[in-house]
Amino acid sequence: MKKILVIHGPNLNLLGKREPEIYGSLTLDEVNAKITDAAGKAGAEVTIEQSNHEGVIVDIIQKASGVFGAILINPGAYTHTSVAIRDAIASVGVPTIEVHLSNIHRREEFRHNSYIAGVAVGQISGFGVDSYLLGLRAALKFAQGGV
Amino acid sequence: MKKILVIHGPNLNLLGKREPEIYGSLTLDEVNAKITDAAGKAGAEVTIEQSNHEGVIVDIIQKASGVFGAILINPGAYTHTSVAIRDAIASVGVPTIEVHLSNIHRREEFRHNSYIAGVAVGQISGFGVDSYLLGLRAALKFAQGGV
Amino acid sequence: MKKILVIHGPNLNLLGKREPEIYGSLTLDEVNAKITDAAGKAGAEVTIEQSNHEGVIVDIIQKASGVFGAILINPGAYTHTSVAIRDAIASVGVPTIEVHLSNIHRREEFRHNSYIAGVAVGQISGFGVDSYLLGLRAALKFAQGGV
Amino acid sequence: MKKILVIHGPNLNLLGKREPEIYGSLTLDEVNAKITDAAGKAGAEVTIEQSNHEGVIVDIIQKASGVFGAILINPGAYTHTSVAIRDAIASVGVPTIEVHLSNIHRREEFRHNSYIAGVAVGQISGFGVDSYLLGLRAALKFAQGGV
Amino acid sequence: MKKILVIHGPNLNLLGKREPEIYGSLTLDEVNAKITDAAGKAGAEVTIEQSNHEGVIVDIIQKASGVFGAILINPGAYTHTSVAIRDAIASVGVPTIEVHLSNIHRREEFRHNSYIAGVAVGQISGFGVDSYLLGLRAALKFAQGGV
Amino acid sequence: MKKILVIHGPNLNLLGKREPEIYGSLTLDEVNAKITDAAGKAGAEVTIEQSNHEGVIVDIIQKASGVFGAILINPGAYTHTSVAIRDAIASVGVPTIEVHLSNIHRREEFRHNSYIAGVAVGQISGFGVDSYLLGLRAALKFAQGGV
Amino acid sequence: MKKILVIHGPNLNLLGKREPEIYGSLTLDEVNAKITDAAGKAGAEVTIEQSNHEGVIVDIIQKASGVFGAILINPGAYTHTSVAIRDAIASVGVPTIEVHLSNIHRREEFRHNSYIAGVAVGQISGFGVDSYLLGLRAALKFAQGGV
Amino acid sequence: MKKILVIHGPNLNLLGKREPEIYGSLTLDEVNAKITDAAGKAGAEVTIEQSNHEGVIVDIIQKASGVFGAILINPGAYTHTSVAIRDAIASVGVPTIEVHLSNIHRREEFRHNSYIAGVAVGQISGFGVDSYLLGLRAALKFAQGGV
Amino acid sequence: MKKILVIHGPNLNLLGKREPEIYGSLTLDEVNAKITDAAGKAGAEVTIEQSNHEGVIVDIIQKASGVFGAILINPGAYTHTSVAIRDAIASVGVPTIEVHLSNIHRREEFRHNSYIAGVAVGQISGFGVDSYLLGLRAALKFAQGGV
Amino acid sequence: MKKILVIHGPNLNLLGKREPEIYGSLTLDEVNAKITDAAGKAGAEVTIEQSNHEGVIVDIIQKASGVFGAILINPGAYTHTSVAIRDAIASVGVPTIEVHLSNIHRREEFRHNSYIAGVAVGQISGFGVDSYLLGLRAALKFAQGGV
Amino acid sequence: MKKILVIHGPNLNLLGKREPEIYGSLTLDEVNAKITDAAGKAGAEVTIEQSNHEGVIVDIIQKASGVFGAILINPGAYTHTSVAIRDAIASVGVPTIEVHLSNIHRREEFRHNSYIAGVAVGQISGFGVDSYLLGLRAALKFAQGGV
Amino acid sequence: MKKILVIHGPNLNLLGKREPEIYGSLTLDEVNAKITDAAGKAGAEVTIEQSNHEGVIVDIIQKASGVFGAILINPGAYTHTSVAIRDAIASVGVPTIEVHLSNIHRREEFRHNSYIAGVAVGQISGFGVDSYLLGLRAALKFAQGGV
Repeated sequence: MKKILVIHGPNLNLLGKREPEIYGSLTLDEVNAKITDAAGKAGAEVTIEQSNHEGVIVDIIQKASGVFGAILINPGAYTHTSVAIRDAIASVGVPTIEVHLSNIHRREEFRHNSYIAGVAVGQISGFGVDSYLLGLRAALKFAQGGV
Repeated sequence: MKKILVIHGPNLNLLGKREPEIYGSLTLDEVNAKITDAAGKAGAEVTIEQSNHEGVIVDIIQKASGVFGAILINPGAYTHTSVAIRDAIASVGVPTIEVHLSNIHRREEFRHNSYIAGVAVGQISGFGVDSYLLGLRAALKFAQGGV
Repeated sequence: MKKILVIHGPNLNLLGKREPEIYGSLTLDEVNAKITDAAGKAGAEVTIEQSNHEGVIVDIIQKASGVFGAILINPGAYTHTSVAIRDAIASVGVPTIEVHLSNIHRREEFRHNSYIAGVAVGQISGFGVDSYLLGLRAALKFAQGGV
Repeated sequence: MKKILVIHGPNLNLLGKREPEIYGSLTLDEVNAKITDAAGKAGAEVTIEQSNHEGVIVDIIQKASGVFGAILINPGAYTHTSVAIRDAIASVGVPTIEVHLSNIHRREEFRHNSYIAGVAVGQISGFGVDSYLLGLRAALKFAQGGV
Repeated sequence: MKKILVIHGPNLNLLGKREPEIYGSLTLDEVNAKITDAAGKAGAEVTIEQSNHEGVIVDIIQKASGVFGAILINPGAYTHTSVAIRDAIASVGVPTIEVHLSNIHRREEFRHNSYIAGVAVGQISGFGVDSYLLGLRAALKFAQGGV
Repeated sequence: MKKILVIHGPNLNLLGKREPEIYGSLTLDEVNAKITDAAGKAGAEVTIEQSNHEGVIVDIIQKASGVFGAILINPGAYTHTSVAIRDAIASVGVPTIEVHLSNIHRREEFRHNSYIAGVAVGQISGFGVDSYLLGLRAALKFAQGGV
Repeated sequence: MKKILVIHGPNLNLLGKREPEIYGSLTLDEVNAKITDAAGKAGAEVTIEQSNHEGVIVDIIQKASGVFGAILINPGAYTHTSVAIRDAIASVGVPTIEVHLSNIHRREEFRHNSYIAGVAVGQISGFGVDSYLLGLRAALKFAQGGV
Repeated sequence: MKKILVIHGPNLNLLGKREPEIYGSLTLDEVNAKITDAAGKAGAEVTIEQSNHEGVIVDIIQKASGVFGAILINPGAYTHTSVAIRDAIASVGVPTIEVHLSNIHRREEFRHNSYIAGVAVGQISGFGVDSYLLGLRAALKFAQGGV
Repeated sequence: MKKILVIHGPNLNLLGKREPEIYGSLTLDEVNAKITDAAGKAGAEVTIEQSNHEGVIVDIIQKASGVFGAILINPGAYTHTSVAIRDAIASVGVPTIEVHLSNIHRREEFRHNSYIAGVAVGQISGFGVDSYLLGLRAALKFAQGGV
Repeated sequence: MKKILVIHGPNLNLLGKREPEIYGSLTLDEVNAKITDAAGKAGAEVTIEQSNHEGVIVDIIQKASGVFGAILINPGAYTHTSVAIRDAIASVGVPTIEVHLSNIHRREEFRHNSYIAGVAVGQISGFGVDSYLLGLRAALKFAQGGV
Repeated sequence: MKKILVIHGPNLNLLGKREPEIYGSLTLDEVNAKITDAAGKAGAEVTIEQSNHEGVIVDIIQKASGVFGAILINPGAYTHTSVAIRDAIASVGVPTIEVHLSNIHRREEFRHNSYIAGVAVGQISGFGVDSYLLGLRAALKFAQGGV
Repeated sequence: MKKILVIHGPNLNLLGKREPEIYGSLTLDEVNAKITDAAGKAGAEVTIEQSNHEGVIVDIIQKASGVFGAILINPGAYTHTSVAIRDAIASVGVPTIEVHLSNIHRREEFRHNSYIAGVAVGQISGFGVDSYLLGLRAALKFAQGGV
């Protein structure tokens, strides 16, 4: 069975409660329900993690090797500042899909650069919660047959 | 009925014939068949255009207003050099999805900047032909009920 | 008799129909009527062209030599990206006035640079349709006695 | 009656006496006569000031509020270095037209940036004394009915 | 009653013990006593936190919403590197005052940029422990009546 | 007795009359009354100056030596352009506090750099008229016992 | 038999008529005659194209695959702005020689960068019409035996 | 007795298991054994820590003061992004040796900058596990006589 | 008789009183006496001005034309910020020698650029008061025979 | 008789022995034989020099004046670092052709800049040993009739 | 037997005599004695060269091929300016260790870049004479069995 | 007796013979005669050297310690590229005066930076041969009483 690891980066636990005009009105639980539901329909299983800690995210990624067929990650603010997460992804060798709720290429200059992009299969940015669902579909392709 | 305009930018007519290690082995016709098929299943209709000419792409976009519910565009090389295409998209006010076969954020420095991103709903980059199919799904959301 | 060539760059054919808060509510036909009328009153004749194609604009400029006493050009998006139009203007040696509807120096950073300015007599920017009319007056000075 | 404030920045008092190949052979008095004459024909009244002092120009601009319908300014060298004049213009809220004798976009790199452009209605650059006369016409539009 | 959250960033737990020529000779406990005392005199209550962990600081900020009327933060080294803390502050919508012991604008180039400034009410920098006390006074204004 | 010199830079004489949404609705006289009052309560005496002229501000600062125990300056637009004011402050050796009404670190890029910060004790930015009052308190510390 | 495709970019159709001090006094026809003659003597056949349109040049290059043994291109202004032509050359896999009449490395800063150089075998710049003739000789080496 | 603190930064716990072509085939345990062995032969004692968390590394460094005679640190990805670790090293005043397995000066541009170098005694980069052993020898010199 | 205009820029009136370790211990009067004395010995006459006002310095320079054979200027802080003084020098056409007490090329980065250098005959920097005396000798060469 | 000076810069004495995949398998002697042979057929005489020393190359160039009709130089690594060689070429006034074995515009960023290009007639880059032979042909044009 | 080539770059012949606070008080002879001694103990033989001439250093490196098993080089000032030495090292294919007495990453900005690092095995910087001894140990690993 | 070392950098041996419009028409011998003559009148002795070799200039400077009271150097092209000469000057500790015939601050951008300025007492630039004579006077001050 296909297993996908979904990682939400910093501040995504506040989803739906804050700045809904930017990030939408769904809470993280609701988003996760949608992801789980979509995965289930596709015959896949998802494990979902959220952390505000760069180091914790590195820890989570490191354990993905040999367990998950793909990683779906919204690195949030760490997209722009974390070489450690980049190196973790490069180290575990699990195909990784980078997603963003908002279109980071239309926001502040410092949000245009992604350290993650250099080691990700691809990037999906700007579709709100649909970024996750589209990313999940992409991830499923890479997780064929599980690990 | 939902109508989607699909635009392939310069050199995409060579798809499948050249540099398959980068762009995949499907020809543009095969890619278009997949897009048309997926659109059909979703009850949508697609019109597909390809041009190597910046001005022609501007012309095509200008005519989309009031006809199409969304635009799905792979601007190819013009992603990085065309303010005219950017302005055309901004002018017609049709929701536009930007897609790329390869992950442009991992390639040469000059491919990291997208003039199109500033006026697009979102960007999908790096999934080969699946970038189109994922983008189509995103586009369909915006084309609800057609125009 | 004085002959002036007026060139409208990409997306200016949509004038008045789109984004009137930026570009005003007059259509290109109405703008052209104003230009023609003002030229007529000044005893001059104008030929007006519009194209979304960089190459076509180069073609048009090349034919201006020996026919027109001055060129009045709003290069639109090509202001910021076209060395080819710059070289065409330099080649034909016809005095050229660069005009912009909006004040390009107040907009996005990438609109601050003009490749055309380096070969134009002068630049008028920010006065809406009056940019053309002011530019026409400037052009007439250079077209004294035609060619 | 329409009232326009005309401000000449530093070194413009030397007009006609120095570097005529760049700035033309008319003296500032002659230029002012042309401006006054053109204003008179348009049923407007102009007040003309010149100063080599940044602070004095700030003082002059501050007094324009409620007195003049528009400001016509050639900020000279202060174009490129004065945030104070920029802020003064922003503060008084009188529509301001920025003019330059030479085409500043064709000169030294450090003359390409204008702090004034960010708060001006528009910019006219490169037409010698005609820059003032074209600018005056633009200013008159904004001064309709005086203040 | 007014409630203020005070956050000390990384390495501030060493205050007074190290590099007193830069940061002063008061220990963090002594600084905190001064802050608590000043708050008490103003009829306010402070909660004080210190952490060397970016993620922990994000966690702390997230919990401030609905509890504290203002945040007083010395982000230390994270001032210059943490988009996550910036986003946390933007998310919770609690007025935030940024303070620094030393004048960061006089130190190494990389300390001139503050990611926090973009979402803070204001910044106080360079007054040693007084930066906190001045910041507390500013914070109190925003915490009128508690939350 | 403690003596403090307060200097308001260019355009601050317009305070309260213009752009109150940015700078607040108090006039400069009202701000000065608040400063004088606060100083009086602290047993200090303030001398307040305002000028739109860089040179005049340099003159004022030069005379502060041996007369005032501290300088409180809002350099306004000269913050970003005046090396002369910086050098004057460095020359007189009177402790100088730099204040700004708005948070300059959140505004245009060119307002992020401060030539004054390099020679000031500290900087307070973003608290409206409270920036002055907070700055006054900081200044008083340095003016203990006058000069 | 060896077949070489020669492409002249924008404004080269004006050769000999304009700015002969920069580009020489030979017309494009005369240059082409020299190229054809030199090719004939070397037992090769040349097909010569000129276009002011970026898209047309892309079209021409795309058709070179399997027909020509080498491409000799003077991309003119598109040298500095066209990623599309670069990508076309990369796509067809025909050895390409880049030539320039003037020494682009001695001209304006924006002419120093060549998007074409990254995919060309080599570059010849600064020898007037001889740049073509030298480039032809280089091209012939790569076209040994035709395609 | 000499005591040395050895710190391995993020992802170094995966050593030997991932990307051996870059980082070598020894596991972290094997590397640590080599370090311990070499230290023992030199009559020194090492304490070895590894963490993926920036904050944890700051905590560890802070406790080194008065306990260890030198620190040997491979900051991994935090080399390029952590001002907090830099400040911690500066705060504790223990001589610190920076080591890297790969030659960071030959890798991606963003790996060329080291925030740590500014506060380290020296840097050893590119010798695989030998970087640690060479660094240990350097550290021993600074740890003469323990603390 | 040879006439030389000597101009001291901002803060030079404080010479000798402040920061003698940088600028030397001679007062401006003493420096001026040395200049006058040296000029007298060389059969020349000097007029000496000092101002802290950029505009006043522009005024002074403008009056030099036809009166002085050369200008000797230490523009102080305006070296780095004044295009107006640069333009004044260019306008009057009097040979101008730029001098600095300290070696500006060894100081802060922002002191390395001189707007004046672009229009000065030459620059002498770093010799304390001797910079003036050396500059005077250079100026005398240009003032041969007066004006 | 035509006399051409051929200069090989640093490390070119190793030609053919090292890195043949970049620089080809011919030794410098073999390359020189080809150059001499081609010159002889064209009725010209070549003098060939090689040095690893910047100063020696300057010396050689200085002696070319009045002796050689043209210089053919591959400055090797000094292309990117030597202003001295540039100045020597400018000083002697002998037409100089710059050649490179590899296409320097496709290599590391620091090899894109050429100090020599600013004073050379033209540049030929990327054709291996043919760069010399093409350059020789160009040089012969300038050496018509010897000196 | 293992043979190591040691190269000291410019100004290192002054070692111990000048600026001992930066470079230590040992003379070059004393440093060389230490290197020779350490090599001897390791059963290796060193040849030591010093030159102030870039070209001479290139010559020395070129002769290392087939003679030495490793090169230990302190390129001194040429670290930052010599592409020729870089190319020589790349050409001879002998493993090269780059060492520096001081920590170049803590010194002036222009000393942060090393052209040598791009072709060296690794870099050791900041340990005074120990940089050589540590570098020697690293070199010995590469010289196993000599050449 | 005062002893001054005068060093002429690369290409200065061609003085008077080449580009006299830039460097003047005096030959190096004539310049040297003037320097020697002026030194003699001041009771000083000069030793004059010229070299096109960076390394030779380093050698010459190294021998100046303990022999000369000051160095007068025109580093020519090495001004902009030689860290080695900078380090040599810093090493010998002899006061050094940097002179240039032309005003390097008015020439190409790459001539604006001087590596020598960072270690020189002062810089004199733009006075032709008088730069040497003015520099000699400055040097004599530092050479009081010889060494």
